[in-house]
Amino acid sequence: MPVNLAAPSPASLLPVPGVRLGIASAGIKKPGRRDLTLIELAPGSQVAGVFTQNRFCAAPVTLCRQHLATGTIRALVINTGNANAGTGEEGLRRARQTCATVAQLMGCATENVLPFSTGVILEPLPLDKILTALPAAQTDLAPNHWSEAAHAIMTTDIVAKGASRQVAIGDKMVTVTGIAKGSGMIHPNMATMLGYVATDAAIAPALMQQLVKEVADVSFNCVTVDGDTSTNDSFILMATGQAGNVPLDADGAGYAVLKTALNEVAIELAQAMARDGEGATKFMTITIERGRDRAECRQIAYAIAHSPLVKTAFFASDPNLGRILAAIGYAGVTDLDVNALQVYLGDVLVAEMGGRAASYTEAQGAAVMRESDITVRVVLNRGSVDATVWTCDFSYDYVKINAEYRT
Amino acid sequence: MPVNLAAPSPASLLPVPGVRLGIASAGIKKPGRRDLTLIELAPGSQVAGVFTQNRFCAAPVTLCRQHLATGTIRALVINTGNANAGTGEEGLRRARQTCATVAQLMGCATENVLPFSTGVILEPLPLDKILTALPAAQTDLAPNHWSEAAHAIMTTDIVAKGASRQVAIGDKMVTVTGIAKGSGMIHPNMATMLGYVATDAAIAPALMQQLVKEVADVSFNCVTVDGDTSTNDSFILMATGQAGNVPLDADGAGYAVLKTALNEVAIELAQAMARDGEGATKFMTITIERGRDRAECRQIAYAIAHSPLVKTAFFASDPNLGRILAAIGYAGVTDLDVNALQVYLGDVLVAEMGGRAASYTEAQGAAVMRESDITVRVVLNRGSVDATVWTCDFSYDYVKINAEYRT
Repeated sequence: MPVNLAAPSPASLLPVPGVRLGIASAGIKKPGRRDLTLIELAPGSQVAGVFTQNRFCAAPVTLCRQHLATGTIRALVINTGNANAGTGEEGLRRARQTCATVAQLMGCATENVLPFSTGVILEPLPLDKILTALPAAQTDLAPNHWSEAAHAIMTTDIVAKGASRQVAIGDKMVTVTGIAKGSGMIHPNMATMLGYVATDAAIAPALMQQLVKEVADVSFNCVTVDGDTSTNDSFILMATGQAGNVPLDADGAGYAVLKTALNEVAIELAQAMARDGEGATKFMTITIERGRDRAECRQIAYAIAHSPLVKTAFFASDPNLGRILAAIGYAGVTDLDVNALQVYLGDVLVAEMGGRAASYTEAQGAAVMRESDITVRVVLNRGSVDATVWTCDFSYDYVKINAEYRT
Repeated sequence: MPVNLAAPSPASLLPVPGVRLGIASAGIKKPGRRDLTLIELAPGSQVAGVFTQNRFCAAPVTLCRQHLATGTIRALVINTGNANAGTGEEGLRRARQTCATVAQLMGCATENVLPFSTGVILEPLPLDKILTALPAAQTDLAPNHWSEAAHAIMTTDIVAKGASRQVAIGDKMVTVTGIAKGSGMIHPNMATMLGYVATDAAIAPALMQQLVKEVADVSFNCVTVDGDTSTNDSFILMATGQAGNVPLDADGAGYAVLKTALNEVAIELAQAMARDGEGATKFMTITIERGRDRAECRQIAYAIAHSPLVKTAFFASDPNLGRILAAIGYAGVTDLDVNALQVYLGDVLVAEMGGRAASYTEAQGAAVMRESDITVRVVLNRGSVDATVWTCDFSYDYVKINAEYRT
C-alpha cells in the first residue's frame, strides 16, 4: 500500500489557464478503462522535456525529441497499457499516425503534437483503438480535468499523483500544476516515467530546456524504486504564458520564485512515485552528507537504495544495519575511509569508526524501523556536498506485482 | 528450492593429500550447529587468495591479506553465524586471537593462519565460543572431511557445494577438490563469499597469485544473485605439492591441464551458488556475444542479471521479454545500436531490428520459460568477444529469506 500518500482531491489540482485536458477509453489493455489522455495547449505555449537515456527508447520518445526540436507544441497525447517500445520502425509509424490524427482534430501540424506511451514493452501499439477513441478525448477537453488525467495515466500505480502551487510573480498570481505516474521500472537517468508540469507563467523560450533539466535533477532524478530505467521516461514542462507576466529570464526575482514552485510540485510528484512504488510499505529518504561531490554522494545513496538486502530488511522492520554498511562499502568510491564516516537511522547514531556505535542499542534501531517514513543519513566527513535519494522497501508484493504483470 | 542441484556425495569429494579438515560446534548462532571448520595444510603448501573489493571489508579479510603476505600458511579457520564485519578494531583483535589460538594448537605462528567469517554483519564475534570449540575441531581433523566442511560453512545455503576432479600431470595423478558457500549478498567484485579449492599438485609459488585470480575471473566473478557485494568474499587456492610432480610453471603442458581442472571445479561451485541462490526457482545463463570487449559484454550481462523486473518475470515463467530489452538499453553502453542486435531465449530468436522478431510467437517463449535452466543470449554484432554470467530468478522466497534473516 502507498506510504503516507493519498490521491489529491480534484479541487486541489488547480486549472492552469491555457491548458485543457480530455480523457477517453480506448480499451487498450482492459475494456472500459480510461486509458487515453489529450492535453491541449494554447497558442504561444513554451514546452521542453527531458527523456530516458535508455538505448532502447520507445518510439514516442524518439518522436517527442524530433517534434520538440521544431519549437511549437499544441497538444500531448498519452496512452497507458502499451509502451510502444521495442517495436522498431512500425512503432514509429504508429506513434506518428497517432500524432497526425490528433493534429487533424486540433487543426495543427503533426509536429506540433507530442506522443507518450506507457505499459508493456515489445507488443504492437493497438493503433485503431487509439485513433477511434481520440475524438471522445477531444470532446472531453476541459481546464479542470487534471485529476481525471492523473488517474488515466496510471499503470501499476495505486494512487493518482498530482500537486499544485500558486505564487505571485510581480503583480500576477501564477499557477503550477503537475501530474505523474510511477511506479515500477523506476530509476531515472534523466527523467522518470511520465511527468507533466504546467504553468501559466510566461518564461523566456531560451530558458525552458535548462529549467526542465534543473527541475528534473532535484526531483525525478532523485527517486528510485527498482533501479530499472524505463524505455519511456519523459518529463515535460509546459508554460502557457497566459498569466500575462513579462516573460521571466534567469536574472529576475520572479524566476527564482517560479522555480521554487516548480521544484516543489516536481519533488512532491517524485516522492509520490516512491511512496507508491510497487509493493511499497516504507518510504525511505537516503541522505549522504559532507561528500566531495554530488556524484559520489549519489553513488552511495543509490547503492543503499538499490540493495535488495537493505530493502527487504526495511520491509521486515529489521534494523539489520550491517547491510547498509556493506552497500556503502561496495558503492564504488574506492578511496572511501569507512572509519571516518557516521551512519544514522533517523536521529539514532548507528555506526562510526568502522563499527557499531558504542551508544547504539537494538531497541533504538527497532523503534525507528517501526516508522513508515524513515531517513538513513550517512555523513562522509570528506567534503561539503550533500545529496538525497528517495526510495521504498522491497516486499512480497513487489514480486507478486511483477510476476503477474501481464496476467 | 535449488535448481537442478544436489549436494555432492561424501565419496565424490576426493581427499587431497596434505589437507585435513576438522569440524566442531561452537554454537555461534544456534546451539549444536556444526559451525566451525579448521583446515590443516602440510608444510610446504602454497596458498593464494582473492578477496572482496568492499571498502567495509571484514576483519578476517584484512588479516588474510596480511598473513598471506608473509608467505607461509599452515591452517585456515572458518566460522559461520557471524561475519565479524563492521566491527572495527575490536573485530580485528578477535580475528587475530582466533588465529593465535589455532596457531598454538597446531604449533605454528599466528601469521600462518588464515581466518574467515560469514554471517550477520555489525555484531561482535563471539570469541569465547570459538576458542572453546577449536580443540574439538582439531581432534576431528581428517583427510576425508570435505563433505562435512562443505556443510559446516553454509549459511542460508540449502545445499552443500563441492566438486572434485583428478587429472594426470606427467606420470602423476593429481587431485583438485573445492567447497564453497553462497547464497545471498552474491555479486563478486573479485571473488565471492567463501570458496576453497585445494590440489596436491606442486605449483611454482610465483604463479599462485596469478592463477587464483584467473580461476576466479572465469568462475566466481561470473555469478550474481542479488548484486550485493559481500564484506567477506574470499576465494582461496591451496597447493600442497604432495603429488610429487615437478612444480608447474606457466609454460608447461601440465599447467594448462591443472588450470582446466581448477576452472572446472571453480565453475561448478560458482554455478552452484546461483542454482542455490536465495529463493531461486530458475537458473539463468546470460551470454553476451560479439561485443567489442569483455567489459561491455559483462556490463550488459549484469544489467540483465540484476534487473528485478527480469528476475521476477523469470520467476513467473512469463516471457515478458521487453524487460530484457530495457535492461540492455540502460546497461550504459552509450553507443550501442539496438537495431543491430539479436536476442535469443534458449534457441528462440526473440528480438531483432529494434523490435520483436517477425518469426517469434508467445508460445515459443512460454515453452522455453517453463524450463528450469534457461539461457538468454544477446548477439551484439559489433565485435568478437563473448562473456557469460550466471544468476537466478527473484521469488517471494528471496524476500522472505531476507526479511526474516535475523529472526
